[in-house]
Amino acid sequence: MKVSARNVFTGTVAKITKGAVNAEVTLTLKGGSPLTATVTNGAIENLALKEGMEACAIIKASSIIIGTDLHDAKVSARNVFCGTIASIIEGPVSAEVDVEIGGGNVVSAVITLGSVKHLGLKGGGHACALFKASSVILGVN
Amino acid sequence: MKVSARNVFTGTVAKITKGAVNAEVTLTLKGGSPLTATVTNGAIENLALKEGMEACAIIKASSIIIGTDLHDAKVSARNVFCGTIASIIEGPVSAEVDVEIGGGNVVSAVITLGSVKHLGLKGGGHACALFKASSVILGVN
Amino acid sequence: MKVSARNVFTGTVAKITKGAVNAEVTLTLKGGSPLTATVTNGAIENLALKEGMEACAIIKASSIIIGTDLHDAKVSARNVFCGTIASIIEGPVSAEVDVEIGGGNVVSAVITLGSVKHLGLKGGGHACALFKASSVILGVN
Repeated sequence: MKVSARNVFTGTVAKITKGAVNAEVTLTLKGGSPLTATVTNGAIENLALKEGMEACAIIKASSIIIGTDLHDAKVSARNVFCGTIASIIEGPVSAEVDVEIGGGNVVSAVITLGSVKHLGLKGGGHACALFKASSVILGVN
Repeated sequence: MKVSARNVFTGTVAKITKGAVNAEVTLTLKGGSPLTATVTNGAIENLALKEGMEACAIIKASSIIIGTDLHDAKVSARNVFCGTIASIIEGPVSAEVDVEIGGGNVVSAVITLGSVKHLGLKGGGHACALFKASSVILGVN
Repeated sequence: MKVSARNVFTGTVAKITKGAVNAEVTLTLKGGSPLTATVTNGAIENLALKEGMEACAIIKASSIIIGTDLHDAKVSARNVFCGTIASIIEGPVSAEVDVEIGGGNVVSAVITLGSVKHLGLKGGGHACALFKASSVILGVN
């Protein structure tokens, strides 16, 4: 299956912590960065997900927030990847911002055009992509 | 690929409307119900998505809101599926609510336990599952 | 900290309820309204979040649903703020709707243009903005 989500990152399942309803899964991406997902326990069973397995993290571009000057900020979002803005596509309401985060990975975010203006985002500039663990869907082949 | 998202509904692409950044895609689910998704134009190209193709809609349980007495409510969420609560799994913070919406389809939602109590949700009761077009990921085989 | 998310509301942490994986956090916004967020326990630790601390709630415009006639509706979404539509920016697929909710706060939502038409939304009209606790990112300075 191919999916519409613009962001698909492969890695290895490093840790699974189960709760009553949800489980927290940490992937180690190629390159070594950790990525955290929360999925239902039912999903863990359906996928037969176990530590050491290869899996991919799927995140919709619309779930991603772009930030600048985030170095001193503390946010609850578990996933923050910083890099350089590769491109910006502007529409009348929405805009797509692509950020190169190293290791050949690019994060695509859809944000409002108002935010592009407000943050003064430009190609070549520094930006961070942040998303919640709950925005991540896990996939296995 | 198998995905952790609990909700995967197959259908046929009925209509694609492209904007500058986003495109709106309407699927006709088996059973005839329409389901609306917004994805990036880039995703439409990557998937080579065309009207008449089979595709599936993937929605995370955490993106779904449960409502009762929604018949007269008007909400911007494009997707509202009503039916009967099949099961509720309660955790200390989160709860999973499964709603049978007919045609053999079940929608799984993760909501707060506080909302289960507040709405008085019970197995066998009526409930509607609602989610935004932007919460839907499309997949093709 | 500058983020693309259009909605950033400051408040005081009123209550933290921990589960095995997720925690529910209630903020009291300036003006007195409660706002509920679910974040991972790991995030609570990373932020050293405690009752009485000042924090901000960050919500992407795309996570927000706009409703009208919601007074009798019962939905699981924990956060519902009603007010007056200040402006609507229409694109071919998406539209941005800004709702003044009192206390100088404005909620920005990105919804489909189809919903703007279907709901008959107009500047000056009444509307409610609703979003799930799981759509909220918490930040501290």
